[in-house]
Amino acid sequence: MNKIILELLEDNKLKDLHELLRKSNPVDLAEEISLLDETIMVIVFRLLEKEQAAEVFSYMESDDRNKLVKIFSKSEIVGLIDSMYADDAVDFLADMPANVVTHLLDNTNKEQRQYINHLLQYSEDSVGSIMTVEYVELNKNMNVKQALDKIRRVGIDSETIYTCYVIDKKKCIGIITAKDLILNDPEVKISELMKTDFIYALTSDDREDAANKLSKYGLIVMPVLDNEGFLVGIVTFDDALEVLEDEATEDMQKMAAIVASDKPYLSTSIWEHAKNRIGWLLILMFSATITGTIISRYEHAFEAVPILVSFIPMLMDTGGNCGSQSSTLIIRGLAVNEIKYTDMWRVVWKEFGISLIVSAVLAVANGIRIYIMYKNIALSLVVSFSLIGTVVLSKLVGAILPIGAKQLKLDPAVMASPVITTIVDTISIIIYFYMATTILHI
Amino acid sequence: MNKIILELLEDNKLKDLHELLRKSNPVDLAEEISLLDETIMVIVFRLLEKEQAAEVFSYMESDDRNKLVKIFSKSEIVGLIDSMYADDAVDFLADMPANVVTHLLDNTNKEQRQYINHLLQYSEDSVGSIMTVEYVELNKNMNVKQALDKIRRVGIDSETIYTCYVIDKKKCIGIITAKDLILNDPEVKISELMKTDFIYALTSDDREDAANKLSKYGLIVMPVLDNEGFLVGIVTFDDALEVLEDEATEDMQKMAAIVASDKPYLSTSIWEHAKNRIGWLLILMFSATITGTIISRYEHAFEAVPILVSFIPMLMDTGGNCGSQSSTLIIRGLAVNEIKYTDMWRVVWKEFGISLIVSAVLAVANGIRIYIMYKNIALSLVVSFSLIGTVVLSKLVGAILPIGAKQLKLDPAVMASPVITTIVDTISIIIYFYMATTILHI
Repeated sequence: MNKIILELLEDNKLKDLHELLRKSNPVDLAEEISLLDETIMVIVFRLLEKEQAAEVFSYMESDDRNKLVKIFSKSEIVGLIDSMYADDAVDFLADMPANVVTHLLDNTNKEQRQYINHLLQYSEDSVGSIMTVEYVELNKNMNVKQALDKIRRVGIDSETIYTCYVIDKKKCIGIITAKDLILNDPEVKISELMKTDFIYALTSDDREDAANKLSKYGLIVMPVLDNEGFLVGIVTFDDALEVLEDEATEDMQKMAAIVASDKPYLSTSIWEHAKNRIGWLLILMFSATITGTIISRYEHAFEAVPILVSFIPMLMDTGGNCGSQSSTLIIRGLAVNEIKYTDMWRVVWKEFGISLIVSAVLAVANGIRIYIMYKNIALSLVVSFSLIGTVVLSKLVGAILPIGAKQLKLDPAVMASPVITTIVDTISIIIYFYMATTILHI
Repeated sequence: MNKIILELLEDNKLKDLHELLRKSNPVDLAEEISLLDETIMVIVFRLLEKEQAAEVFSYMESDDRNKLVKIFSKSEIVGLIDSMYADDAVDFLADMPANVVTHLLDNTNKEQRQYINHLLQYSEDSVGSIMTVEYVELNKNMNVKQALDKIRRVGIDSETIYTCYVIDKKKCIGIITAKDLILNDPEVKISELMKTDFIYALTSDDREDAANKLSKYGLIVMPVLDNEGFLVGIVTFDDALEVLEDEATEDMQKMAAIVASDKPYLSTSIWEHAKNRIGWLLILMFSATITGTIISRYEHAFEAVPILVSFIPMLMDTGGNCGSQSSTLIIRGLAVNEIKYTDMWRVVWKEFGISLIVSAVLAVANGIRIYIMYKNIALSLVVSFSLIGTVVLSKLVGAILPIGAKQLKLDPAVMASPVITTIVDTISIIIYFYMATTILHI
């Protein structure tokens, strides 16, 4: 499509181009436009109709939006903000300097400004930050026909009309779906059809919890109430889906000792990437020197039996891998609410059982290998017993730390592979040299 | 609620209990019922109305379903299957032995049996396996009123009526939303309102790709066509959401060297857990002995300078952490389509830049520490240079392997921390001892 756009522009067939753009899906357009050079990008963008432009703009990556904004006039930007959904506008404004935001908002229309200012109050992790303020309000005394007429009047986009909210004295007293309206007689009263016992979120709820709730109950949309029960917005499934994807990404980043960021990999600069990674690397590097210090205390042991050194990588890696298997399963289990912290002892017990089976298999396999290679039973026993100790301990540490972190209201995802590996290294080296000096009588 | 259920049962207030159950959300009920003892579970379940029972049953975990099925009569099970959505029924039947499935299906009603047999053909990873076969078909010659009448007649559940499919000679020629029907005049023809250019999936598409597509375009539902353009089912957002959550979980498991499983942690037995973990541990353990073998070749080096051994853990851990940072970001980027394999060289170049910055910081910090502790510049240089080499190589390996795997149609998630650590260990030990023997003239 990119090629066609360029060809049409070159041949100056603006009418055809306009028609092509009008028919295209805004998600695709956002992608295509991002691939164009800045100057052409602006020309194409200006050919879009107002509503479509706002939609395309909200699907673009922040880097590409910034390119456009640099060239746009102030009134063009204000026009865009006016046409965007309030939550998308907030998303866009969040990337801009505070003084620019104030300046732009001063020029947007009053209703939109109020919506935006309202949404800007909520913290980034709260439901407030992902909710939409455009929804259909009904009155309990309306009948189905009146309700449908109101929907026709206010319109808005499809996913937000499929559940309507019945408001009485500013409170949300019930919800009613488009399905109920379609399937019932025009004369039936809304108060007879509405569901008064509905699933909702509070503005202050964590956005991840709200997204999980929406997913759990398979809802298209969920109302957001403030502490007094006033309806202040709605969360739709597409925003929830994005939150769940982002949270999974962030957890993976944290589990790999990276400061979490929701900026796409390719549009993050080398410096930013380095900054996000260096902190944990420094902490973990210095922690690993503890293991080194312990090793240097056992100099006499590996001076007497140098081959001992060659098993250190295998022991450390196996310990790290075992610990990260456990911690990964448990961190993910906590994130998707399959494991609660009251399950702590069940989990620990399970990991203990698993570690016995796993360590026995590993110890036997490795013991046989060492015996075949070195014909030395004592050495074989030292390594195998150390392996058992390392595996059992690493699985227990990998199980207890994430749940413990959750209990202390810390993020369990931080207690993943890198941290566990560093801790387990130290323990396994101590076990190993203790076994070696005892069994080999060094 | 659990307590209330037990109290009502004890007092034999079955009517109250029946009323309480009828009002409860099926998702919550599935959870509550699972907490009860088997015998009580069955009693409570039998109090549910037919439709609700089928819904609750489809939300239950397979372990709990099996408990019920053991006690149920064949006709009870057949009744459940008849009342379930075809895709949920398939989900349930997939856990049962093949001969039991055949036996049960012989007794379900003909239409349901056809749906189920149809769905059972599709492979577990395909869109076919997650699609629903209940949807509303319209004809292009209908008008809005006739279309709404048809929706009223066929009903089905809410998310599946919000997009209807216009069928002509078995082919899907357009889609129309409930919003279009509500907002337009009763006399307008469907053919004038329907959208002929719509997003769809093919039955053979990967279910993850389809879920990503639905998420990308923010759709509630997407039609599934076979290769000839015949409509065979629909995928709804809640199924897509589940797929995306499951895929993220599976990727995390693979990245931690575990055989992926979508069974919840707590309902997986100790033996199954051990089986899922032992394979990779054995492979990685034996691979790690390569590093050990290399170390034993340099016995003369650490016999001359024993302190060299104490830096091995720090080097190995840092290399592993750096590699896993890169591989995690890239594996996730590939999974959510932010990185394509045509971006290979951009990514490698980026990681190279990042590794230079990161390794410089780590090398300086560590060099200073070693100089202060040991007052030995040569040693300080050996460790710092080795650190630079290790960090640069581990980031490059961490970047190239996942993208390479994707290009070879392997799963990038396998090229994560554990595999990378093992490879990087070997490289870093070679660099380290090469530096040591050269700079320290051993």
